[in-house]
Amino acid sequence: MPTTPNPLRRNEASRRAILDAALRLCAENGYGRLTIEAIAAGAGVSKKTIYRWWPSKGAVVLDAVDDLASTVADHPYTGDLAADLRTQMAAVIALLTPASTSAVVGLIAEALHDDALGDDLRERLVRPRIDAFNRRMHQAQRDGQLAADADLDVAVDLVYGPLYHRLVFHLGMPNAEQLHTLVAHALRAFVPAPQDNDANAPPTS
Amino acid sequence: MPTTPNPLRRNEASRRAILDAALRLCAENGYGRLTIEAIAAGAGVSKKTIYRWWPSKGAVVLDAVDDLASTVADHPYTGDLAADLRTQMAAVIALLTPASTSAVVGLIAEALHDDALGDDLRERLVRPRIDAFNRRMHQAQRDGQLAADADLDVAVDLVYGPLYHRLVFHLGMPNAEQLHTLVAHALRAFVPAPQDNDANAPPTS
Repeated sequence: MPTTPNPLRRNEASRRAILDAALRLCAENGYGRLTIEAIAAGAGVSKKTIYRWWPSKGAVVLDAVDDLASTVADHPYTGDLAADLRTQMAAVIALLTPASTSAVVGLIAEALHDDALGDDLRERLVRPRIDAFNRRMHQAQRDGQLAADADLDVAVDLVYGPLYHRLVFHLGMPNAEQLHTLVAHALRAFVPAPQDNDANAPPTS
Repeated sequence: MPTTPNPLRRNEASRRAILDAALRLCAENGYGRLTIEAIAAGAGVSKKTIYRWWPSKGAVVLDAVDDLASTVADHPYTGDLAADLRTQMAAVIALLTPASTSAVVGLIAEALHDDALGDDLRERLVRPRIDAFNRRMHQAQRDGQLAADADLDVAVDLVYGPLYHRLVFHLGMPNAEQLHTLVAHALRAFVPAPQDNDANAPPTS
């Protein structure tokens, strides 16, 4: 008796093939040269199949990157906040390197002049990862490694900001030693001060 | 007696008209819609004139932004480091806002997939401004507002990083109050600690 093909399973296989082809083609030729046609050819599906599920190549790459980032950029927990952040950030750096063939960087560049894609990028990709960062930081507060009143909205900017400052101005991603220094400095802003001092006040002497 | 036209003065007037037209057209329609043709029409010069001086629209916009940033994003000196940084950063934020019609953001997006333009952006636009930041920070060290051994390479990433983290992920530029909080936190990493402590070390209790 012939088995009936399962359309849901077939759809999932096509979806996977499309996302994999999008990432592979970005890595080979860069986001700029990626087309829906090339993704369709690479995945062995029709362009119509892709357009049934996604409105644009940006939307395909967003889904592909979302899958990828979930797998590789999780927040570990060893109990050492700085070490765990360095581990997670090294994974983020790998996703951004080399910039010319990074799907994430391609998406960032496209979203800079496509507000709708930018909104999707923020809501679907970034917000859940900021939530994951916040969970790790809350754990660090429970572990006594972070001030109980630390402003986590500021923390996410100070911890990850340096990577994007370096990305947009082609200053090079930090190496392991520079990453160590960056994380140590960023966390210094959130350690309870031994005495009440105001970093803004000019010296009174 | 007719005056002899001064070719140097005429060239400078054309150069100024071209850079002004590039900025005006970016602000009106966004960098993505900018063409050499439109710049030529806007400046009242031929495309040939533009191509004699610049190889691409990215190169024109880089020069235009360089002029603009020199004028508006200087580092003031009132003696209050945090206040002066906020003033300078507010000017940077204005240059990045709104992102969809910012020439700087257009340039950043284009440079993300054009390494040669990215190198120019870093060397011609960013390095001189990092030097200016460093001069202000050295003055702050002489004023006793910043640790004498502060790592200024880290400082520039921590101070400006948040703006670019927010830019690339469409998280919105900081308002005045958020900017105050960001600068205060970033500077906290560079205030001499009252006692020798290591923000990385897990608590020993």
